[in-house]
Amino acid sequence: MNVMTEAQTGAPATGRAGLEPTYEGDFVLDRHLLLESGRMLANPTLHYAVYGRLSAARDNAVLVCHALSGSALVGSWWPEIFAPGAVLSLDHDFVICINLLGSCYGSTGPGSVDPETGRSYGPDFPLVSIRDNVRAQAQLLDSLGIRQLRQVLGGSIGGMQALEWAMHDPARVERAAIIGVAPLSAMGLALNHLQRLAIQNDPDWAGGHYLPQRPPRQGLALARQIGMLSYKSAALFDERFGRNPNRNGEDPWALDNAGGGLIGGRFDIAGYLDHQGERFIERFDANSYLAILRTMDTWDPLNGHASAEEAFRRIRARINFVGISSDWLFPPASVREFAATIRSTGVQADYREMFSSHGHDAFLAEQAELVRLLQ
Amino acid sequence: MNVMTEAQTGAPATGRAGLEPTYEGDFVLDRHLLLESGRMLANPTLHYAVYGRLSAARDNAVLVCHALSGSALVGSWWPEIFAPGAVLSLDHDFVICINLLGSCYGSTGPGSVDPETGRSYGPDFPLVSIRDNVRAQAQLLDSLGIRQLRQVLGGSIGGMQALEWAMHDPARVERAAIIGVAPLSAMGLALNHLQRLAIQNDPDWAGGHYLPQRPPRQGLALARQIGMLSYKSAALFDERFGRNPNRNGEDPWALDNAGGGLIGGRFDIAGYLDHQGERFIERFDANSYLAILRTMDTWDPLNGHASAEEAFRRIRARINFVGISSDWLFPPASVREFAATIRSTGVQADYREMFSSHGHDAFLAEQAELVRLLQ
Repeated sequence: MNVMTEAQTGAPATGRAGLEPTYEGDFVLDRHLLLESGRMLANPTLHYAVYGRLSAARDNAVLVCHALSGSALVGSWWPEIFAPGAVLSLDHDFVICINLLGSCYGSTGPGSVDPETGRSYGPDFPLVSIRDNVRAQAQLLDSLGIRQLRQVLGGSIGGMQALEWAMHDPARVERAAIIGVAPLSAMGLALNHLQRLAIQNDPDWAGGHYLPQRPPRQGLALARQIGMLSYKSAALFDERFGRNPNRNGEDPWALDNAGGGLIGGRFDIAGYLDHQGERFIERFDANSYLAILRTMDTWDPLNGHASAEEAFRRIRARINFVGISSDWLFPPASVREFAATIRSTGVQADYREMFSSHGHDAFLAEQAELVRLLQ
Repeated sequence: MNVMTEAQTGAPATGRAGLEPTYEGDFVLDRHLLLESGRMLANPTLHYAVYGRLSAARDNAVLVCHALSGSALVGSWWPEIFAPGAVLSLDHDFVICINLLGSCYGSTGPGSVDPETGRSYGPDFPLVSIRDNVRAQAQLLDSLGIRQLRQVLGGSIGGMQALEWAMHDPARVERAAIIGVAPLSAMGLALNHLQRLAIQNDPDWAGGHYLPQRPPRQGLALARQIGMLSYKSAALFDERFGRNPNRNGEDPWALDNAGGGLIGGRFDIAGYLDHQGERFIERFDANSYLAILRTMDTWDPLNGHASAEEAFRRIRARINFVGISSDWLFPPASVREFAATIRSTGVQADYREMFSSHGHDAFLAEQAELVRLLQ
């Protein structure tokens, strides 16, 4: 079953395959984080991991930003980036990865206790924007005395953060690699909306007030499965699954089964998607999923700016945009166009295209090819 | 809201916009229908509509086959096909359209009473294949004394039926127009699987034994919404909805709302999809939806044949295949390839491409363009 790399994230954060971090811990902001939405997040925690050693001059830091369901353990989900001669070197780079606010992997999220109420946030967890995340991350870097980032890189929501870094803190960012991302299209918003509905429809979601022992498993699994369609490509599905019956021997043409005549045995692709849904609910929280969908939906780097010129002209970083040929969530044409818009404001931004049948997921599923492109 | 034509079906079957049929009624098969699956369907009813007059020589019949959630009322959902000088003429053609078995628009389906048990089929409704439908439809045509079909045409599942007609009853079919269809890909199977799960996840589905007054509304609405993504195109969504907030004034960046901080105000595309879901549950039945998904999933014209050659060589009809440039459920390349495979067996089959941003739905949403192509 595990023929494909886990979409969006690599291995579960709890799975410690790959590189071990030099340090993994929490940073608690010593003040409230005023969010773009106007709400406050009281003393949020950022969970982070670092790899390698910070140089005495503190000039070798690299920030990696993770995607929707990722974690701070970049060495686990993006190990090939660290291969000898690849993008990052543990001999030379000090690599930091910070868990997104809203997540369930250590940073403050819906499952965390709100110090103002003594209860967990649950569905009252506020909208935390990409920019809010970047501002919180900047405080963590400040605390580590890191004034300079050699590079900020990320795919998908990680790329949204990388661009916001270059916009928000232009003097600090020398280079950015922004992979498989552009402002989310209407189709992307639609896919996220249906994932949200899948969770909301599950009675166990209980308006977000579910008990930890009774989470909305079916809803979260279906949400993940809808997401999986957008992370993969039709060509990959055809190649891997075609119209084959499920490899466990189920028969799509069977007379009947447990579901009666209306529900047949599954095709192989259905068995695969169900398996992905089942794996996901073991490792991720439904309210965190909703929180980060909202972070993703509301990202628009032009928001609050009169023009692209005004939004991007402060950027000092050299930016490498990477589009993925088979990505239909963030189609390569939209990444290329986005790069061109940013370049037109005077930013040094190039565009490279990764040829892969893996769809959006290729930045995780075909890391060697990505490395080749970023070298 | 109603900027787009209803996907897959045109107007609801109850909506009698467009042409009135000459006759609409039921045909009851006088024997059991032995299904490909090995099950029997006892004296099934076919609900059908006819338009125009059958000539004395009975040589002017045309069969139109409908898609997933369509009805026999082709004059309502495909009116432009009947426009003066278009594809069909009520002065010259006798047009028949027959509701699919499994549907909720008059033909025997899960909501019908099984004469063997005296109870409605519910989830025990058997798998009825495309070929089963064609064999039942042939009995209806026999009863009308129709030995010859000038043309059989249909889009999507309607096109599956049209091809099966040409294969099953080669002497009867002079021409076929097969629009926006090829054997369902793994991505298509995946989309159908997730629509099925959305219904199954709804506790009101109750394993298919729901009460008519308490159907699985949320599940069916979500299923329809997932389907809608595949019937439309990303370009159309961008053009029509972009990243606009919902036109009713909801604010995706709002602090909070009824759903707490995790659920924002909707974007316009989300409002549109919700509206489509709400409309659909007023007119369609969840078990019928499941039944026809299975009919669609299991269609493979090569099934039971040693080769394409063996499967298709009996066809005598001239076939026009139509691919839709922006269709990602049945991509034009796969329709073109399917046409080429069939042509390679000696069949007169051509391929034409409809340029449209409407996606799979274009055969209903841009009928004038389709007419131009079929003329």
